[in-house]
Amino acid sequence: MSSNTFGKLLSVTTFGESHGPAIGCVVDGCPPGLELAPEDFVHDLRRRATGRSRHTSARREADEVEILSGVYEGRTTGTPIALLIRNTDPRSRDYANIAAQFRPGHADYTYWQKYGIRDPRGGGRSSARETTMRVAAAVIAKKWLRQRYGVTVRGFLAQLGDIRPRGFDWDAVEANPFFWPHAEQVPELEAYMDALRKSGDSVGARVTVVADGVPPGWGEPVYGKLDAELAGALMGINAVKGVEIGDGFAVVEQKGTRHRDLITPQGFASNHAGGILGGISTGQQIVASIALKPTSSLRLPGASVDVHGNPVEVVTTGRHDPCVGIRATPIAEAMVALVLMDQALRHRAQCGDVGAVEPRIPAGAGALGGAGQG
Amino acid sequence: MSSNTFGKLLSVTTFGESHGPAIGCVVDGCPPGLELAPEDFVHDLRRRATGRSRHTSARREADEVEILSGVYEGRTTGTPIALLIRNTDPRSRDYANIAAQFRPGHADYTYWQKYGIRDPRGGGRSSARETTMRVAAAVIAKKWLRQRYGVTVRGFLAQLGDIRPRGFDWDAVEANPFFWPHAEQVPELEAYMDALRKSGDSVGARVTVVADGVPPGWGEPVYGKLDAELAGALMGINAVKGVEIGDGFAVVEQKGTRHRDLITPQGFASNHAGGILGGISTGQQIVASIALKPTSSLRLPGASVDVHGNPVEVVTTGRHDPCVGIRATPIAEAMVALVLMDQALRHRAQCGDVGAVEPRIPAGAGALGGAGQG
Amino acid sequence: MSSNTFGKLLSVTTFGESHGPAIGCVVDGCPPGLELAPEDFVHDLRRRATGRSRHTSARREADEVEILSGVYEGRTTGTPIALLIRNTDPRSRDYANIAAQFRPGHADYTYWQKYGIRDPRGGGRSSARETTMRVAAAVIAKKWLRQRYGVTVRGFLAQLGDIRPRGFDWDAVEANPFFWPHAEQVPELEAYMDALRKSGDSVGARVTVVADGVPPGWGEPVYGKLDAELAGALMGINAVKGVEIGDGFAVVEQKGTRHRDLITPQGFASNHAGGILGGISTGQQIVASIALKPTSSLRLPGASVDVHGNPVEVVTTGRHDPCVGIRATPIAEAMVALVLMDQALRHRAQCGDVGAVEPRIPAGAGALGGAGQG
Amino acid sequence: MSSNTFGKLLSVTTFGESHGPAIGCVVDGCPPGLELAPEDFVHDLRRRATGRSRHTSARREADEVEILSGVYEGRTTGTPIALLIRNTDPRSRDYANIAAQFRPGHADYTYWQKYGIRDPRGGGRSSARETTMRVAAAVIAKKWLRQRYGVTVRGFLAQLGDIRPRGFDWDAVEANPFFWPHAEQVPELEAYMDALRKSGDSVGARVTVVADGVPPGWGEPVYGKLDAELAGALMGINAVKGVEIGDGFAVVEQKGTRHRDLITPQGFASNHAGGILGGISTGQQIVASIALKPTSSLRLPGASVDVHGNPVEVVTTGRHDPCVGIRATPIAEAMVALVLMDQALRHRAQCGDVGAVEPRIPAGAGALGGAGQG
Repeated sequence: MSSNTFGKLLSVTTFGESHGPAIGCVVDGCPPGLELAPEDFVHDLRRRATGRSRHTSARREADEVEILSGVYEGRTTGTPIALLIRNTDPRSRDYANIAAQFRPGHADYTYWQKYGIRDPRGGGRSSARETTMRVAAAVIAKKWLRQRYGVTVRGFLAQLGDIRPRGFDWDAVEANPFFWPHAEQVPELEAYMDALRKSGDSVGARVTVVADGVPPGWGEPVYGKLDAELAGALMGINAVKGVEIGDGFAVVEQKGTRHRDLITPQGFASNHAGGILGGISTGQQIVASIALKPTSSLRLPGASVDVHGNPVEVVTTGRHDPCVGIRATPIAEAMVALVLMDQALRHRAQCGDVGAVEPRIPAGAGALGGAGQG
Repeated sequence: MSSNTFGKLLSVTTFGESHGPAIGCVVDGCPPGLELAPEDFVHDLRRRATGRSRHTSARREADEVEILSGVYEGRTTGTPIALLIRNTDPRSRDYANIAAQFRPGHADYTYWQKYGIRDPRGGGRSSARETTMRVAAAVIAKKWLRQRYGVTVRGFLAQLGDIRPRGFDWDAVEANPFFWPHAEQVPELEAYMDALRKSGDSVGARVTVVADGVPPGWGEPVYGKLDAELAGALMGINAVKGVEIGDGFAVVEQKGTRHRDLITPQGFASNHAGGILGGISTGQQIVASIALKPTSSLRLPGASVDVHGNPVEVVTTGRHDPCVGIRATPIAEAMVALVLMDQALRHRAQCGDVGAVEPRIPAGAGALGGAGQG
Repeated sequence: MSSNTFGKLLSVTTFGESHGPAIGCVVDGCPPGLELAPEDFVHDLRRRATGRSRHTSARREADEVEILSGVYEGRTTGTPIALLIRNTDPRSRDYANIAAQFRPGHADYTYWQKYGIRDPRGGGRSSARETTMRVAAAVIAKKWLRQRYGVTVRGFLAQLGDIRPRGFDWDAVEANPFFWPHAEQVPELEAYMDALRKSGDSVGARVTVVADGVPPGWGEPVYGKLDAELAGALMGINAVKGVEIGDGFAVVEQKGTRHRDLITPQGFASNHAGGILGGISTGQQIVASIALKPTSSLRLPGASVDVHGNPVEVVTTGRHDPCVGIRATPIAEAMVALVLMDQALRHRAQCGDVGAVEPRIPAGAGALGGAGQG
Repeated sequence: MSSNTFGKLLSVTTFGESHGPAIGCVVDGCPPGLELAPEDFVHDLRRRATGRSRHTSARREADEVEILSGVYEGRTTGTPIALLIRNTDPRSRDYANIAAQFRPGHADYTYWQKYGIRDPRGGGRSSARETTMRVAAAVIAKKWLRQRYGVTVRGFLAQLGDIRPRGFDWDAVEANPFFWPHAEQVPELEAYMDALRKSGDSVGARVTVVADGVPPGWGEPVYGKLDAELAGALMGINAVKGVEIGDGFAVVEQKGTRHRDLITPQGFASNHAGGILGGISTGQQIVASIALKPTSSLRLPGASVDVHGNPVEVVTTGRHDPCVGIRATPIAEAMVALVLMDQALRHRAQCGDVGAVEPRIPAGAGALGGAGQG
């Protein structure tokens, strides 16, 4: 794979800088015949967008998707689907003063070390703006997974700083700008964010993604394991520092008798594994969580150096999220959906179409029939 | 990549089942001229081997590496290096009784669902035996990284159940069978493991790997990020359920002012990032941790079903590790080394050989010269 | 690789249909620091363009390249370079009548068989319009190869129907719309083409590409051989039915004593091999030739069927080239340049930068020093 | 792909040198459930073997295939299939005298230039011995293609020097050591080869491969075209200098009215295209031809240089084929079969399993139903 291409059979190539003329992607390998229109992208791009509430960066992008290829008379043709979004609100002046400095905790320093040149406008390629196209590409993956296998991919904010959900309701998640699963706590979160923003500081977060309806059998041992690819995909999201599948780091202190998910004729009795055993889906919910670091772009000054190695105090005055985790939920969902669709195609290639379409094996149920011959 | 091939430029293809005639790998893309002999593999394979102490599985394998190709007169030639190890102590009879059952918490069920057929002897391909070849392949990567860039990759056991190190000393790590960094605690660990084994249960663990000497600039944005590839590589190790880079999940509760690593003319002032920013190495230590689940192969019975969907009680009587994490350290090191060498070659391809060899930029020091033109 | 991505380290992903809104590509893996501007693309795109003379299709495209990403202040940054060209002269009405028919000798039938859906406007994705982006991407490759290694890639029309060059002069090639290497014959070619066009028929052609200055050592045995990749790249050009390296099919009747290129202290004494031995460049001229079939889009009616399997007479009234080979020269050059740059990066990855830059080993000369250690 | 791995979904990684301890391969991605035993390899390996007649090299290898993994109780399990063949008749002494010289027309010089080191024993990795594993891997592909799709892949010697077949009969092909399709000419060929061997010289050859039963729809536009991948695969065989699909280079002088294959309700009326249009199979016979150069290893002396650049006379006294084309037929078949199986899996991934198994669309018949939705 090239470094800006993701996926083996459903492959997504993205391009574009935060303040360049446009961002875009090429989605290759999509099966033909899927209905696709610009309207399909509106919902998820809006969920990811900044400027939806006062708790995210004030940058407002129209995020209008132009489909440049791969769709004829409203259906995918099997040829590459190119999507383009023009950048409309870049405001490069905000960043001019830091072109010669390295913001602590940012990719400024490492891009410059790697390439000897960097586009400093809005973080260039390292900006979270790039994730827009992951979300756009995953709109296609989500739609196909849902239509073809009944798979849904949903996420929520599982922790904000030290605040944890005290209840859980999927319906609540989409009803607040935090993707928080417990409606009662939303005022608390708002107060927390207001205080944080006032202080000039930022905070980390945890996001969890759940995929329902994934049939058993997806995932390729031993280096294309489903959990391994999810981990790679999720760790590749900006600001992510940790990934967990199922019980994650809690397994360190677990005993085997507690961790192992027993199996009954009615299905699995628990899901500590997060729906994956030996790198292959079990038919249960896939559960993955990520840790997002607090953004390093702060109004509070921080010590750094300039390109000549001289000490400087860096203050970031641009528009930034005090908690990047707040709108990471659709991005995390996107990466999970892209991995799942790619694995679905890979499974179909090697093992045939058994287990697909509607009459597939019920998740966690007792119908333990193995896949057919390839 | 195919599912049993790892790496883009340094690519490792492994094969073999736990109780088949042999396991092996093909390492392709290694630069020519590296000295290599069968003796090079002895040390790390012994570190990974079972049967070294009473705390690991009693299986004893000779693990003698035969170099089948790619080496001429003691040096790599640039052609594929094939390594072969014959299995000498499989004892298949231990597993015969569970061929028609699914061990809870194992890949038995998912392999069968995926392929409709599975090799039940010792877990077949899903056995930890496969990781032997990861360690063998990484011997080459470690050697090249050390000779070419002065990079060293070392790991240790960072937690066993709820026991954490109360001190740290690299010298201690190799002096006990747990890779534990604090010598004083070793008797405590031994007592813990003895009690665990007697109880018939198992427990999880945490392993941390540190790479020293990695120059700034390795890692490919945006889907070939160094941390993303480390996460994928480490999550792909058997039993791993979580991966952290640097502070990992602790970042969720951190403030930005605490997390961001300030930069001084003398180098970075801290390393919360774990040596990676924007997916590219900073020149600091690379730090990655993993969570390993407790093994699911227990003498204590667990509910499951057989291939016909009937309920059964599964008891595992074979030889198994009560804590797979104990000998996971060399495996985790191996995956980190393989990722690093692959990224080193990829960086050299795109950006040239600047920053390589001895006179490279000191880790964390003030010499902030960017890479040259590619 | 995905099906619309070409190259391993310099990877080019193209998209777009003949009569869609735009065509474009993403060039990933280009080294940083290369000067690049929209003007760089003008020359080669004009060489490939239709409508330059009466001997090619009348379609006139502006072919204005917009650089969407990957370039900052006139230099490549190492991030993906996206290029976009809007289609301005599609004229879809020409094709409306054949939407339900399969033109003989075209991809109409196979796309429909493969995907169950096809974009019939101008051939959709199977149109030669797609090759525009190959030429655009290769502008980058040609520039880098020239600056970094002094490599030049040039082609010419080596046969038109049964007309062969009776002389050879590189200067002549660019001075006529046929890329013909012998100026005296140009009137003959023009008369031939005029008669052909009048007859409503078409004819095949042969194009030869020569790369000068390629250092010895490029190419990866055994499945990434330089000649193998050239063959794949060239055969993938629309209408190509044959590829030759060096003496090509003439070797069938050659004796070994005639074919083998003897070596003297001053270099190779001949170049029957076309500059490649064992899949690796020798340091001599790389020579590759292709056979292009006569276009199947003819005014003369041809029997075919419609999508219901009923017999029809197909007459193509759109704008078409009576000899697609006439403007295939820049396309063939493009594919050769892309392969060479990709292989150059791959060689640099595995074997280091020895042999690069100016003081490289003279082509075909006696300085037979091997590459250094990797 | 790494340089010693071939194929995207059915991926074959080979290793081994001519005179090393063994050669082998890992076949990954094979569907589960295929019956496979060591006996399956005997037939094709014998067809490829040297020493079958006096017209090929005298080297005699047992070529006994050991299946090291991926097969359980006689069926493939979906995990990597490793095949190993020990070298039993290397005779390295034959080559000792040329370790410091470059044989004209050989890879000696280019390997040394690329890597700075080479294994001179029997040509090392560049030896035709490597093709043994291509043939072995393709046994699996041929078997699967035949069972799953009814596809057969067969080849024959289409020209030896200036001798062309004067008749054609598939039954004759396997009845003589030349794979010659006209039995009457075999004495003529034998006399030709005897004279050639006596003269100390060698000669080129042409081999044609035909695949019957390939359903329409295989092949991926635009860089994974079926013809492009066939060309790359075939050109990658040792000594190949040219590849043709269908009419090949004859198209240069053809008119469009002659070349285009008309379509009738009963199927295509001709097959100038060689069964591929727009890079996708038409459902007709796939026809590909290659040109093989005369071997450069001759008893007749040839000028060359040694590693110090001094002039030498090289005489090859080892065992060599005076016409490598004679036993290239199974190798060419192998590459075609590997490409076809890989493309079959890729097609199944994107477009589903329509068109597969027995009731597939008859080749060249009028049932022009498009593939279903993916």
